[in-house]
Amino acid sequence: VWPVRTIDWVDGAVELVDQTRLPDECVMLRLRTTDELIGAIRRLAVRGAPALGVAGALGVVLAAGDREAIARLRAARPTAVNLAWGVDRAAAVADQGPEAVLRAALRIRDEDIAACRAMGERGADLLEGDRLRIMTVCNTGGLAAVERGTARGVIQTLHERGRLAEVLALETRPLLQGARLTTWELARMGAPHCLVADSAGPYLMARGGVDAVLVGADRIAANGDTANKIGSYALALGAERAGVPFVVVAPETTIDPATPSGDHIEIEDRGAGEIVRFGGVRVAPEGTRALNPAFDVTPHDLITAIVTDKRIIRP
Amino acid sequence: VWPVRTIDWVDGAVELVDQTRLPDECVMLRLRTTDELIGAIRRLAVRGAPALGVAGALGVVLAAGDREAIARLRAARPTAVNLAWGVDRAAAVADQGPEAVLRAALRIRDEDIAACRAMGERGADLLEGDRLRIMTVCNTGGLAAVERGTARGVIQTLHERGRLAEVLALETRPLLQGARLTTWELARMGAPHCLVADSAGPYLMARGGVDAVLVGADRIAANGDTANKIGSYALALGAERAGVPFVVVAPETTIDPATPSGDHIEIEDRGAGEIVRFGGVRVAPEGTRALNPAFDVTPHDLITAIVTDKRIIRP
Repeated sequence: VWPVRTIDWVDGAVELVDQTRLPDECVMLRLRTTDELIGAIRRLAVRGAPALGVAGALGVVLAAGDREAIARLRAARPTAVNLAWGVDRAAAVADQGPEAVLRAALRIRDEDIAACRAMGERGADLLEGDRLRIMTVCNTGGLAAVERGTARGVIQTLHERGRLAEVLALETRPLLQGARLTTWELARMGAPHCLVADSAGPYLMARGGVDAVLVGADRIAANGDTANKIGSYALALGAERAGVPFVVVAPETTIDPATPSGDHIEIEDRGAGEIVRFGGVRVAPEGTRALNPAFDVTPHDLITAIVTDKRIIRP
Repeated sequence: VWPVRTIDWVDGAVELVDQTRLPDECVMLRLRTTDELIGAIRRLAVRGAPALGVAGALGVVLAAGDREAIARLRAARPTAVNLAWGVDRAAAVADQGPEAVLRAALRIRDEDIAACRAMGERGADLLEGDRLRIMTVCNTGGLAAVERGTARGVIQTLHERGRLAEVLALETRPLLQGARLTTWELARMGAPHCLVADSAGPYLMARGGVDAVLVGADRIAANGDTANKIGSYALALGAERAGVPFVVVAPETTIDPATPSGDHIEIEDRGAGEIVRFGGVRVAPEGTRALNPAFDVTPHDLITAIVTDKRIIRP
């Protein structure tokens, strides 16, 4: 059975779907300590900006005032601004006692559910056309948020309005979130979809097979430059050349006014292990080095629109 | 130990590297009959257009006048035009005796070696700079040819001239020729290299980490539009934006004057199997559909230069 929520607070613990086990199994993890949660964040059992915001806030509840644990949690994934934001927002009311911290964390959860619904509607309103073929990368669905997701939230709204022809989901090397998670979500939604190797994205646009590209965001700089899953920038280049709208869908909290431009966004390199193996099978010679930037930065001039829960920004 | 040649004639037999065993083991097959060679071709122990041309010609030597064996060899891989070409060229002199057939076959081998060496030198001359970081896709090395290869031939010449800082090899989904074959060749060449997910190519260029992109070609249209391994077009877009040269390296025979532009090149879709599985591991839910174009077309305006064994073309 598909849980209604990817992440939630249940009987004194954080419960979340272990995304590393999908699509083979849907396993709910029950995390009782901040360090258990940090481990789950580091190995990407929970991922996606909104889900990480909720995880950060609920992690502060688990920390029960342990400042060192809170600091470790806040630094568990440096690129994920929402994680730090969720931690900070819950920690800000720590002096009002544990009940206040829990209320703050649950408010973040509820705000995410409402924000995703708003983004879905605003994004669907923005796009023109009735039989849309949407390309997307990584997983931006309920698995990345609490319920509906960001870019996938727009896809879901389009589908509910009968305006979705097909989703072209990029497999999203190295961890294959598109192949493993997005296809699984789309199948459960009943949305027609095809899986595509990442490198084919720009070419399929050039061939006329895509009406819009919808992506999420990990961090949006003040000038609109957007850090997102590696491969997003290549899609933006392909979209520009093909004249296809490239739309970022992310909650307002993803915008970081303290970061003036993409040049100031630190990009995490996740090491060779994910690249030299594919689905557990070693694919490159022993000892092969790799570059493995987890994210890239799409310059604002390649972004048609940024859809948030509050507004549409045209960088 | 790296064999000098991927395929050769040694003491009355065809010797070739079994590419299905790479990168785990380097096994030289010694094939004494045409049917042994046909078996090796069918299971892709030998692949790559130039290597198949040589294999076809040497197979005619093994056939020793057996016309039925020659016909079976010629049809071993119906789409491989170079195989039939090599068979025909050797068989054309069969009436002059076995020595003439062997001479014709060795001439094809030697012509490939000379062409790759010429491309390597011309390409290395073309590029400026002393500590070059080269990005490449798929396998264009000796494993596809006899000794040095096309784009990889240029890399080898740069390395021999002490001008190569590093190769950034794209893994090349779905069949991972970059991860499996190119890294293995580069390791044996002693060339510093990193493996990179295909989707990271354009971003690494934007970050200033690449001095030139070198790719091979499957077919070049009369106007310079170039069909090559899927992902080449995305690299060309990234190179243009970053101001990095995008250079195609291919023998003159790859240019097809009968094809006016890329729009006339038919792109093979190799089906969902390669996308939803790897090495027996399923990576997408059962029943997931996929688009799997094996090649893409890079428009000529994105190509800085085409280097052949005869000249440099600037489309």
